[in-house]
Amino acid sequence: MSLSDLDQSRYPQLSAPPRLLLGPGPSLVDPRVLQVMATPLVGHLDPFFLELMDRTQSLLRQVFQTENQITIPVSGTGSAAMEAAVANMVEPGTPVLVCINGYFGGRIAEMASRYGGEVQTINRPWGEIFTPEEVKQALGERQAKVVAIVQAETSTGALQPIDEIARIVHEQGGILIVDAVTSLGGVPLKVDEMDIDVCYSGSQKCLSCPPGISPITLGPRAVEVLDQRETKVANWYLDLSMVRAYWGSERTYHHTAPISMVYGLYEALRIVFEEGLENRWARHRRNAGLLWDGLEEIGLELHVPLDYRLPSLTTVRVPDGVDEMAIRQGLLQDYNIEISGGLGELKGKVWRVGLMGFSSRRENVRLLLSALAELLG
Amino acid sequence: MSLSDLDQSRYPQLSAPPRLLLGPGPSLVDPRVLQVMATPLVGHLDPFFLELMDRTQSLLRQVFQTENQITIPVSGTGSAAMEAAVANMVEPGTPVLVCINGYFGGRIAEMASRYGGEVQTINRPWGEIFTPEEVKQALGERQAKVVAIVQAETSTGALQPIDEIARIVHEQGGILIVDAVTSLGGVPLKVDEMDIDVCYSGSQKCLSCPPGISPITLGPRAVEVLDQRETKVANWYLDLSMVRAYWGSERTYHHTAPISMVYGLYEALRIVFEEGLENRWARHRRNAGLLWDGLEEIGLELHVPLDYRLPSLTTVRVPDGVDEMAIRQGLLQDYNIEISGGLGELKGKVWRVGLMGFSSRRENVRLLLSALAELLG
Repeated sequence: MSLSDLDQSRYPQLSAPPRLLLGPGPSLVDPRVLQVMATPLVGHLDPFFLELMDRTQSLLRQVFQTENQITIPVSGTGSAAMEAAVANMVEPGTPVLVCINGYFGGRIAEMASRYGGEVQTINRPWGEIFTPEEVKQALGERQAKVVAIVQAETSTGALQPIDEIARIVHEQGGILIVDAVTSLGGVPLKVDEMDIDVCYSGSQKCLSCPPGISPITLGPRAVEVLDQRETKVANWYLDLSMVRAYWGSERTYHHTAPISMVYGLYEALRIVFEEGLENRWARHRRNAGLLWDGLEEIGLELHVPLDYRLPSLTTVRVPDGVDEMAIRQGLLQDYNIEISGGLGELKGKVWRVGLMGFSSRRENVRLLLSALAELLG
Repeated sequence: MSLSDLDQSRYPQLSAPPRLLLGPGPSLVDPRVLQVMATPLVGHLDPFFLELMDRTQSLLRQVFQTENQITIPVSGTGSAAMEAAVANMVEPGTPVLVCINGYFGGRIAEMASRYGGEVQTINRPWGEIFTPEEVKQALGERQAKVVAIVQAETSTGALQPIDEIARIVHEQGGILIVDAVTSLGGVPLKVDEMDIDVCYSGSQKCLSCPPGISPITLGPRAVEVLDQRETKVANWYLDLSMVRAYWGSERTYHHTAPISMVYGLYEALRIVFEEGLENRWARHRRNAGLLWDGLEEIGLELHVPLDYRLPSLTTVRVPDGVDEMAIRQGLLQDYNIEISGGLGELKGKVWRVGLMGFSSRRENVRLLLSALAELLG
């Protein structure tokens, strides 16, 4: 091993291919956000940065549609925000109900069990949604202090209605965690109106910021759970009782914030509100509609019924006899377009097409449809 | 709460002040790294990105001076890498010895206790180091499976020799975790030669990459501990038994990597080896020497004796009668220079001056000394 000169042939200058990102995330990042990522740093306790933290939190509250004080970006990718939700709400012995109809519901259950939760699950086939009655019945059989459900299942493309389920969970005294990784900023989500207790998301989906920072918000019931824990949060880095002191008025040092990522998130949120949140939801729905119609026109079948189909992520059934991987490779190699395959139950059976944030554009839909039609011959 | 237009006066375009970062981190980022942070994204399973991951890991091995297979960047800031080290090595009942001579030793102990470790600590005043005999004695009184020590205490500016301690820990069958957050890339660190089992760092110190991604490496003894755990790693996001499958040849999806941060880290590592690792250590030592001499010339006293003084982070005693905060504010307001105050035992007693990575430059030393001399009158 040498301490000396860099071997430029083995470690060439970074030269990324110009991908059109139409997979389950990351989405394309607005050039304005990319530009901001290159801003020289300030210290993480610099007065300028502290003010930026306040502004970012305020914009996050608006995008979540909440007045929750604890509304912050977690210093990690979406799974870190998921783990922050679970780690702060679950302690050993906490009865937890997780609704699993896709990959990410399963991940929540796995995490809750690692934190010592007494985890019960209810299950639906991947691509379907839960009825309020199913949740009610499960809670009737065993009460749960924490209930978790995914609003926008990135693995299936199903959009889960939340309102009625929140009411049921609260009636029996529980709190509701909602995964909004693939909905925040692209699909209607109103944390206060829907009465969600803990909601988290990622940056690299409908917000179109690079991955590495992930919004979370805690409502009053969740803060009460946090305050009344009998044990310390088992996860130090994601301990919101400490993280909130850094993002709150105390400014107590906890860990160094990922400064460039906060820059990027701030700019991404500014862009959201320049467009307007409702306009943005409408754009996602409109472009998804174009995609759905176009896919059906070229003879493809959509995995999720229109009633609860997610605008930001579409699952397309792979026709019999088609090599799903070959089509994806063709899109990538011939057109620089990324779409994704299925996960878990849907592996090999569907493609996943994301139209999120900056990627959700009429021209992208048209190009993808045209390329797909050609490759499917 | 409005869903409509952005209030540009409340949320102005990002316009960061041009700070000279001479605190405990982040350090200044090389403009080449900043530029790379603005590279458009590819997917986290894109062939281009997978190749970049391999190259980044290979450069990380070189900067750690190790051949350890598991050498990866953790998707979070330095404390996440610390927690990854602890969470993967400690399970309920694991006897742990933590050497505390500053803030970050204390943090390791706190984390180890959250993961159920039976934590014993030995303590030295902040700014001092441990002798091998002290570690030997502690292990003689109670064996420990895991011993943790900080090579470069960011809170005190002390540089802890490691070699002899590693030998003692291994003699009694333990593994050694070393915190190299403020040394990697700036201060001699040779993981294999020093026989360190787990070593982690941050990106925003001597590597001069923005914070948000943090190198860690696990040697054979540590991998054995990981493989022979009786319980799952209590932290899902940082579970290296899963993360290594994503960074290894399996490429199993675990969580979305912070793509832009990997871009930045790759470029930062290229820059390290363009300079040469030993040249870089020498530059850090040389500029630190200039600083130390200059500080003593203007009558200031250094907190740590020369014998074990850390080149990357210097603690300067605040003279009697001087308002330490006022001096820092003067530096920031009049000169856009960031230095930092003390933490914990040293709060109000020292300033902390970092000369790390791109910040470690002769001109920065000269400017700081000149500004300090003026402000101290």
